[in-house]
Amino acid sequence: MKKAVVLLSGGLDSATTLYFARKQGYKCFCLIFDYGQRHKKEIESAKKIAREAVCPAQVIKINLPWGGSSLLDKELKIPQRYNVKSNSAIPSTYVPARNIIFLSFALSFAEAIKAEAIFIGAHIQDYSGYPDCRPEFYRAFKKVILTGTKAGVEKRGIKIQIPLIRKTKAQIIRKARQLNVPLALTWSCYRGGKVPCSECDSCYYRAKGFREAGIRDPLTKGRLLTQSRDVFEVNRKGVP
Amino acid sequence: MKKAVVLLSGGLDSATTLYFARKQGYKCFCLIFDYGQRHKKEIESAKKIAREAVCPAQVIKINLPWGGSSLLDKELKIPQRYNVKSNSAIPSTYVPARNIIFLSFALSFAEAIKAEAIFIGAHIQDYSGYPDCRPEFYRAFKKVILTGTKAGVEKRGIKIQIPLIRKTKAQIIRKARQLNVPLALTWSCYRGGKVPCSECDSCYYRAKGFREAGIRDPLTKGRLLTQSRDVFEVNRKGVP
Repeated sequence: MKKAVVLLSGGLDSATTLYFARKQGYKCFCLIFDYGQRHKKEIESAKKIAREAVCPAQVIKINLPWGGSSLLDKELKIPQRYNVKSNSAIPSTYVPARNIIFLSFALSFAEAIKAEAIFIGAHIQDYSGYPDCRPEFYRAFKKVILTGTKAGVEKRGIKIQIPLIRKTKAQIIRKARQLNVPLALTWSCYRGGKVPCSECDSCYYRAKGFREAGIRDPLTKGRLLTQSRDVFEVNRKGVP
Repeated sequence: MKKAVVLLSGGLDSATTLYFARKQGYKCFCLIFDYGQRHKKEIESAKKIAREAVCPAQVIKINLPWGGSSLLDKELKIPQRYNVKSNSAIPSTYVPARNIIFLSFALSFAEAIKAEAIFIGAHIQDYSGYPDCRPEFYRAFKKVILTGTKAGVEKRGIKIQIPLIRKTKAQIIRKARQLNVPLALTWSCYRGGKVPCSECDSCYYRAKGFREAGIRDPLTKGRLLTQSRDVFEVNRKGVP
């Protein structure tokens, strides 16, 4: 059975990616990262999702003592969606080189277990502000694999699979439903409180996605959608 | 003052690279990795070298539970130089994606502190078996920086500096002497015993380099050179 390493954050994108990879016939090995994110809650979600999918998972602890992101540093504020002025700016939740670090661990793991592919749930639609979610970055990383690893040199290679890259959040949610992804177990909110904050970028896009897909979010039981609609509507003029 | 992140292993290549970067006018921030290598001794060497160079250093602990290298797994044997049959094979001391992981952390650090460059002491001469020491790999990684980081997107970029890439070990040692690198503090042996084993690849190339440079190794006080000459001479026909 062909093997794949799947980067699992606990959010709905990576959960959908895991179920997608499984459907493709891969034996999936999940990597979950504890990198000091304030929404540690997503780690528990990721573990539950892997268990539900009956896939082995391991949590890798990473220390990024230099911070440089509001997702790591509790002194900094997680921006509220309706305070975001420009859509082109890279948000303060950007963690320097985060996906590059994640991919490099995945690559090491994939080489060691002779996996054929690495799956990552990145997509450009919602998080267009993050450079490490863009197709050109993944193209460049493929070249790194070909030139800098034993697998690359021995011409086996390891594929980077980004099945969601061109999908909107609504399309991902529909796909998730189709694949029986346990959406109620996924966690998106950056703030990692008891319930989703309904104010951060990640809550905004999740609610928007469910609304557009015409599906009720099983995590918030539709509550987030209703509560925040006004705020979102007001700001829809300024955001995509 | 322009800043640089320097990857410091504790070996003589990275020590020379640190002193080179310092000479170039960079304020150097050293990154040392504790990745489960059996020659943990090099970590202590790296700290001493950074202290001697009066540069801040931090040790990053990395967990690679999947192993896949004789440098990590004590069940596997570190190959003896004279047992190496082919020069083209990738040695068992190759750690899957190690330099890619190191560079990704350096990149994250460099972005966070707004450093202009990352210095790494890789070179193709002695370790030609490691794909992540080849110039084409570094060229590919530069593309990753340009496409996948905030620094790249904002057109500042972060340079990868590989000043030793085309140098032989003897040339590096001569350069080190010229730069007053504290060679006695450096550690190369893969086995990490009390004294260098004189049998691993790393000891072999170190001794060969000092001999060719006509310099006495202050770490081994020339002992390694004399002890191992016979073994090395016998095998020089088979190795470069």
